[in-house]
Amino acid sequence: MKINVLKPVLVSNQERAKENRKFFDRYNSLVLNIIGAPGSGKTSVIENIVKKLKSSYRILVIEGDIKGSLDSEKLMKTGIDTIQINTITECHLDAFMISQALPKINKPYDLIMVENVGNLVCPAEFDIGEDFKVAILSTPEGDDKPVKYPLLFHRARVVIINKTDLLPYVDFKIKNARKNILAKNPRTMIFEVSARNGKGFDKLINFLKKELAKKK
Amino acid sequence: MKINVLKPVLVSNQERAKENRKFFDRYNSLVLNIIGAPGSGKTSVIENIVKKLKSSYRILVIEGDIKGSLDSEKLMKTGIDTIQINTITECHLDAFMISQALPKINKPYDLIMVENVGNLVCPAEFDIGEDFKVAILSTPEGDDKPVKYPLLFHRARVVIINKTDLLPYVDFKIKNARKNILAKNPRTMIFEVSARNGKGFDKLINFLKKELAKKK
Repeated sequence: MKINVLKPVLVSNQERAKENRKFFDRYNSLVLNIIGAPGSGKTSVIENIVKKLKSSYRILVIEGDIKGSLDSEKLMKTGIDTIQINTITECHLDAFMISQALPKINKPYDLIMVENVGNLVCPAEFDIGEDFKVAILSTPEGDDKPVKYPLLFHRARVVIINKTDLLPYVDFKIKNARKNILAKNPRTMIFEVSARNGKGFDKLINFLKKELAKKK
Repeated sequence: MKINVLKPVLVSNQERAKENRKFFDRYNSLVLNIIGAPGSGKTSVIENIVKKLKSSYRILVIEGDIKGSLDSEKLMKTGIDTIQINTITECHLDAFMISQALPKINKPYDLIMVENVGNLVCPAEFDIGEDFKVAILSTPEGDDKPVKYPLLFHRARVVIINKTDLLPYVDFKIKNARKNILAKNPRTMIFEVSARNGKGFDKLINFLKKELAKKK
């Protein structure tokens, strides 16, 4: 009996993710599941993307936080729509939590960015119906993180190395990070940015525009 | 039936933690459960503490990682004993995982530092038999983290603000961080350090010496 308890939960997460994907496909939305450590700069990276894309695309951000709404308040100032999910004790978003937010989506969006709970472990395990996972790795965390949190870096199609403005002050070698990321997934697209000074976003934005075009 | 499944797990974690505590009490060991985000500098903080205390105290570090042994290899170079626990998929250490390491402890230690999995959410929920939890908050993560991860900052008796050497380059105000930490627990001891240049460790070391003396 005990063995059966976890299995249906995971199976039905997968089923629920499929349903979410169908919902997102109705409007051909590109959906990103953005995962990174606490303080890696998920919200600031999203802010930069929003600034560059909001004049041409309809954007929604779904914010996952244990508690509070600091980040969605910050993002609302950019003029886009946001939905806040509070997980209370859960360390990740799953397909069910996302499905509860879907009835609030009452207009078509081109791009939906889901900011997951700050955590490199649990969020990597759950499909929420996204097109792909985006991992954010900030330079002060160290270039060894892909070795220590392998599942996320195995599953993420895109890795954004953030806080490149801090490179002179921290022990982080881009070369080592790239090697460690590609060892987990040789096809990962890697972008280097500084959400603080805006550097490096052009390549990322071009990539996202191509992905958005594929959806239409 | 389903409701009963989780409850015994948590109850018995608490019971197992009590047993661990009894084990640690046999030699009057001071046991710290060290929790912080990936890349917050847990290992480097431990290295600094080891350097300052190893000539006078017998020290053991128990390393919790999803996979690999990068950190315990680093710490073994300081000449102290280490035990590696790989959690494989689990996002935290619990009392059972620690209890499996106890048979390997075959001599008395004054100080046992347990480095938990890099995560601000799940590790905060589990008593592993420690004397107290130590949270590490690094400045690039931002001073709002105690608001976003309340349980850890409610439960930690000590918070170490690490990477103070990066303060000129990041958006982190010590004053705000202190306010946010004390709002979750007004009795928290807060220490400001840089594991990179060694600054600020004297106060922390004095505090630990007092705690070690209480055990004897």
